[in-house]
Amino acid sequence: MISANNPEHKSWLEVPENSDFPIQNIPFGIISTEGDTKRVATRIGDQVIDLKVLFDLGYLADLHFGLEDFDTDTLNNMMRKGKEGTRNLRNRIAELFEEKNHEIRQNDNHLKQALIPVADVTMEMPIEIGDYTDFYSSKEHATNVGTMFRDPDNALLPNWLWIPVGYHGRSSSVIVSGVPVHRPKGQTKPSEDEDPVFGPCRLLDFELEMAFVTYDGKPMGDSISTREAEDFIFGMVLFNDWSARDIQKWEYVPLGPFLAKNFASSISPWIVTLDALEPYKVESPEQEPKVLPYLEFDGKKSYDINLEVYIKPDNGNENKVCSSNFKYMYWTMAQQLAHHTVNGCNVRRGDLMGSGTISGPTEDSYGSMLELSWKGTKPLKMDDGSERKFIQDNDTVIMRGYSESNGVRIGFGEVSTKVLPAK
Amino acid sequence: MISANNPEHKSWLEVPENSDFPIQNIPFGIISTEGDTKRVATRIGDQVIDLKVLFDLGYLADLHFGLEDFDTDTLNNMMRKGKEGTRNLRNRIAELFEEKNHEIRQNDNHLKQALIPVADVTMEMPIEIGDYTDFYSSKEHATNVGTMFRDPDNALLPNWLWIPVGYHGRSSSVIVSGVPVHRPKGQTKPSEDEDPVFGPCRLLDFELEMAFVTYDGKPMGDSISTREAEDFIFGMVLFNDWSARDIQKWEYVPLGPFLAKNFASSISPWIVTLDALEPYKVESPEQEPKVLPYLEFDGKKSYDINLEVYIKPDNGNENKVCSSNFKYMYWTMAQQLAHHTVNGCNVRRGDLMGSGTISGPTEDSYGSMLELSWKGTKPLKMDDGSERKFIQDNDTVIMRGYSESNGVRIGFGEVSTKVLPAK
Repeated sequence: MISANNPEHKSWLEVPENSDFPIQNIPFGIISTEGDTKRVATRIGDQVIDLKVLFDLGYLADLHFGLEDFDTDTLNNMMRKGKEGTRNLRNRIAELFEEKNHEIRQNDNHLKQALIPVADVTMEMPIEIGDYTDFYSSKEHATNVGTMFRDPDNALLPNWLWIPVGYHGRSSSVIVSGVPVHRPKGQTKPSEDEDPVFGPCRLLDFELEMAFVTYDGKPMGDSISTREAEDFIFGMVLFNDWSARDIQKWEYVPLGPFLAKNFASSISPWIVTLDALEPYKVESPEQEPKVLPYLEFDGKKSYDINLEVYIKPDNGNENKVCSSNFKYMYWTMAQQLAHHTVNGCNVRRGDLMGSGTISGPTEDSYGSMLELSWKGTKPLKMDDGSERKFIQDNDTVIMRGYSESNGVRIGFGEVSTKVLPAK
Repeated sequence: MISANNPEHKSWLEVPENSDFPIQNIPFGIISTEGDTKRVATRIGDQVIDLKVLFDLGYLADLHFGLEDFDTDTLNNMMRKGKEGTRNLRNRIAELFEEKNHEIRQNDNHLKQALIPVADVTMEMPIEIGDYTDFYSSKEHATNVGTMFRDPDNALLPNWLWIPVGYHGRSSSVIVSGVPVHRPKGQTKPSEDEDPVFGPCRLLDFELEMAFVTYDGKPMGDSISTREAEDFIFGMVLFNDWSARDIQKWEYVPLGPFLAKNFASSISPWIVTLDALEPYKVESPEQEPKVLPYLEFDGKKSYDINLEVYIKPDNGNENKVCSSNFKYMYWTMAQQLAHHTVNGCNVRRGDLMGSGTISGPTEDSYGSMLELSWKGTKPLKMDDGSERKFIQDNDTVIMRGYSESNGVRIGFGEVSTKVLPAK
């Protein structure tokens, strides 16, 4: 079997310039089309490839998958096969669509069944999430928040450099790109001296994050080491952790964010495998003080993934407001997963783990409006002349991400979410 | 159809004195027996009643259930029928086993299939939990914690009297009574001046809680009012929210408890319906200051449920360490659910919501070792002469609960969990 990652490979399917989906990507998602049920698919260029059809036609034989792995509402079934199973599947798909391969290329009838133009497809929520955890792993973000709300001279809390701090979030309200969000309502406290009031959130924010999806973990009581961690991670998505800053400020002491976050979190629809991202591995920031042994790791565990955020006012143009990169993350995914399970907490297939807001070192690389507008003191200008301190009703927030080297670009597509007025 | 709640009713099945399971209870659970698969059951006295068998034999006809509602691993399927469906089912079971009813009583062959002595049954995890939320709704508990760790004169944080404070917990590690727990390991900070260290938790604690289980909620974006809340609550269980106090202390600022809690939470196996608890409704504590309108409610929304905690040393006797009552809760379940959804957060069938530690006004009614031993300064004496500041390896912690009036006792059985040494 060939390796999907060979940068020399080309597909006989057309791949537009700067496409996120060359033959080296082969992400997985759930699609629906008019009049047909949900099923598993991948994408090359602007063609969606229906894996249920490929399976039915016999092209995925000998890979130990069954129809129930592709004719299904979520990717959870196929993820039972673990890293080796999904790796073999991805390599087989790359083989089928590689330019020298004629197995399916010559069969017009089969192609007609298996290929669907991306414009004719609705992308669905790709996984059934068991538990969703959100980390807080960007040092720049934690420093910015600490500077704004606590003490610029002691911006990081004492535990931050020792622990990949995280908390549990809400899985029921994780939605896929394209699903709109209503501005949440809740309690806020207008000032120190006033009683709290109830009403629509006034400080609605995005958080630029990425998230990873797990395979089956170990039984309760066991831990996953940093060395093992990548074997338990299926892939990654773009993640917008919607945040109501005014609700958060009043509610979050002492048990953390709750209603400020759990009204919605948005993910991009294609899960890009860690295998596809392998060529883009980079060092993560040096960690000082030295971490405890269970958090130590060898080699490169981060990824060079360019991240961008755009705000699109109603009927307006996209305005880029942030350019960041996943490589800025202080804590790696391997450390996050090792920490999460070091107490015996069990991870299940389909769990989602967010990175926390990914802010970079420069002012244009901050991953939230809170930081970009510095608590509203520096409004951002849109090209229509309007200003944004936070997100307004009918704004659409779009996040995009991609890795690029040796002429190959592996992208995530986008997560795009429109904010509707409070109900 | 009769009402299961009639205190005059007796069952023709024997109900031992002080049993938690008279004919007025009719809780729901998932059982397994040797060589047979999991299925839905209820219990009267010391007899478990196999509802799959009752359905197969036609005794549950006309109730709009199907075999898939009873021949299944969890109660989630039958809960699709909502409050009316499960109420009708409970009333029908009460009718069948009421002393004047001879439908099944006269059929030895059917009885042999449907009844199983409780000793021959393994109680399984009753629900597939979507999201698990834990509240912090006992004023006495919050005051005790605030007094110990912050300021006795300002023990309650400013938001506590305005918000039923809650946070998201881990659903993957919720286990049923009888499943042991390994002492968790994690980071703790021995003192202000020392670096953190890694090792087994030294301050392992229980938290005496109850939890409720939801039916299908409303779509994302909608809210459930306090008036509607009870229609969305299926029933309640005893809940032990295991807590590693030393891990918690070091990790919880600013995003709340994480590894200190997510290694395990234990529930009792029988879900007692709100319908069964209806006769035990009581007023909850007066709320001052007056809550915001979305948290107001009419009538009695709390329940008089006696709660007890026992510690059983390895090969030792049970030592009662706490007698509390659910009625002490400051915030009601209706308020918790209304708050949880006021921002549009969607609740799903099978979600679990914990009350928070239920401490009463007296020192023997505190719901955790942290409070009972007042941070370890007042060790509790066991009858074998040993002392407990926190929970030791091989201790079993047992929680029991019941309501009682008019000679009818509706109980929850118990949640019993043994603590094994760290792995």
